[in-house]
Amino acid sequence: MKTFCILLLVTSLLSCTLKKSDPMNPAELFSKGTWIDLTYAFSDSTLYWPNNKISFHLDTLSFGETPGGFFYSSYQFCAPEHGGTHLDAPIHFAANRWTCEQIPVDKLNGMAIVIDVSEKALKNRDYLVSTADLTNWEDKNGKIADDAIVLLHTGYGAFYPDPLTYFGTDEHGQEAVPKLHFPGLDPEAAAWLVKNRKVKAVGLDTPSIDYGQSKDFKSHQVLLDKNILVFENVANLKNLPVTGSFVMALPMKISGGSGGPLRIVAWVKKDIKS
Amino acid sequence: MKTFCILLLVTSLLSCTLKKSDPMNPAELFSKGTWIDLTYAFSDSTLYWPNNKISFHLDTLSFGETPGGFFYSSYQFCAPEHGGTHLDAPIHFAANRWTCEQIPVDKLNGMAIVIDVSEKALKNRDYLVSTADLTNWEDKNGKIADDAIVLLHTGYGAFYPDPLTYFGTDEHGQEAVPKLHFPGLDPEAAAWLVKNRKVKAVGLDTPSIDYGQSKDFKSHQVLLDKNILVFENVANLKNLPVTGSFVMALPMKISGGSGGPLRIVAWVKKDIKS
Repeated sequence: MKTFCILLLVTSLLSCTLKKSDPMNPAELFSKGTWIDLTYAFSDSTLYWPNNKISFHLDTLSFGETPGGFFYSSYQFCAPEHGGTHLDAPIHFAANRWTCEQIPVDKLNGMAIVIDVSEKALKNRDYLVSTADLTNWEDKNGKIADDAIVLLHTGYGAFYPDPLTYFGTDEHGQEAVPKLHFPGLDPEAAAWLVKNRKVKAVGLDTPSIDYGQSKDFKSHQVLLDKNILVFENVANLKNLPVTGSFVMALPMKISGGSGGPLRIVAWVKKDIKS
Repeated sequence: MKTFCILLLVTSLLSCTLKKSDPMNPAELFSKGTWIDLTYAFSDSTLYWPNNKISFHLDTLSFGETPGGFFYSSYQFCAPEHGGTHLDAPIHFAANRWTCEQIPVDKLNGMAIVIDVSEKALKNRDYLVSTADLTNWEDKNGKIADDAIVLLHTGYGAFYPDPLTYFGTDEHGQEAVPKLHFPGLDPEAAAWLVKNRKVKAVGLDTPSIDYGQSKDFKSHQVLLDKNILVFENVANLKNLPVTGSFVMALPMKISGGSGGPLRIVAWVKKDIKS
């Protein structure tokens, strides 16, 4: 009996140690899963709001063999802050709130949840993600946790970067703006989130957290006023699990910026079947 | 004896469970420490190589109350890829190596080590971090682990963004380039790292991985040819521990880019004394 007890104890301690050799080592934890890039690369195809005067452009400064005999390449670029995969900093729609560089780093990462409304949104370009969509998700998956990053999967990411199917119009200029048709978050659902839950950020796979037909950008106003970050044109949402992924979303640190290019990545546990 | 054994077993299992309630939850792990931003914000003060024709500039598109009665701000910007806190992608100095958007996400994060050469480098603007600096560090701290992110702390970060003390000259144009004096990595030490260790990236708190007086940028060539990433103008290295910090370094995802603005942050365990 004594020998058995000792064996049992040693085994249990050993299995405990072996499973987590250093619980404070993030690299070790991340080695047990995979990174998924949720970012579209910036290029001449990057989509901007139709009334933007410029879009992303990369100019070559050098490319090729130098007189010194070694290869060298270097570029410069111009871009509006709001286009491609990007951050809306709170000051984008809320005076006296955080500018881009003022956002604390711990607001830029957290566990993500994915709310899939693609079945309804793909049938209706003007679909508004509703409070019911949020509460229905909770009925199935439990209450949206404090500090969650909420990702809305409308299915429109499949159309990026084709302006006609993604925006609803491929026209440019101010006159194209009323022709925008893509899904967004219902301002009432944004208000529900702000009042009843405590999330860090809301992201989605369309050009704007407010739907294409919005005139007052009320969901922007409601979320950003509470320093809740907004991530737009987020890629590859179809590859994320409903819960359990970890998102790191680091924007270019623009001093005084209202947002800017965002590199957003997600870590997911390795599928136990794989 | 039997009761004692069972008690022992239950206690050991319980302590194991309590310590790590969800070992696969990165947010829970990160809540046990602090994030440190290693990034300088981009502004009109951002430092670029003296011969760059443009530097970072933010143009206001909108700022203030709109006719709709809500606040709105938005900007556009231009910048060379290589300036401020930024990434050198392998193709910067090595043909047919990774462009910026081709770098796998798992190469952009890892456990960091900090090699402090500030005492010697602050006495000599042309200081070259030597192979001996690397092996001396190993004598004290153990072998540089596979997949490490190596950060060289020269102490010059304290001078940023003052060009005279940081670069060694505040002049502009091609004629200012020979007047650059700041520390870098000895190409022989770069070659030693590439041959003998397996690191993901090398970063430092000066404008270039090669010292100011370099003519052939050999450390760039040696590292980038092996797809080892380079991080330059890294901020706040003095606040990192020698080992045990975790670095996440996400560049703006520029298609075909030779590098670009990098948002680099580090997580450190909470000091047990605090």
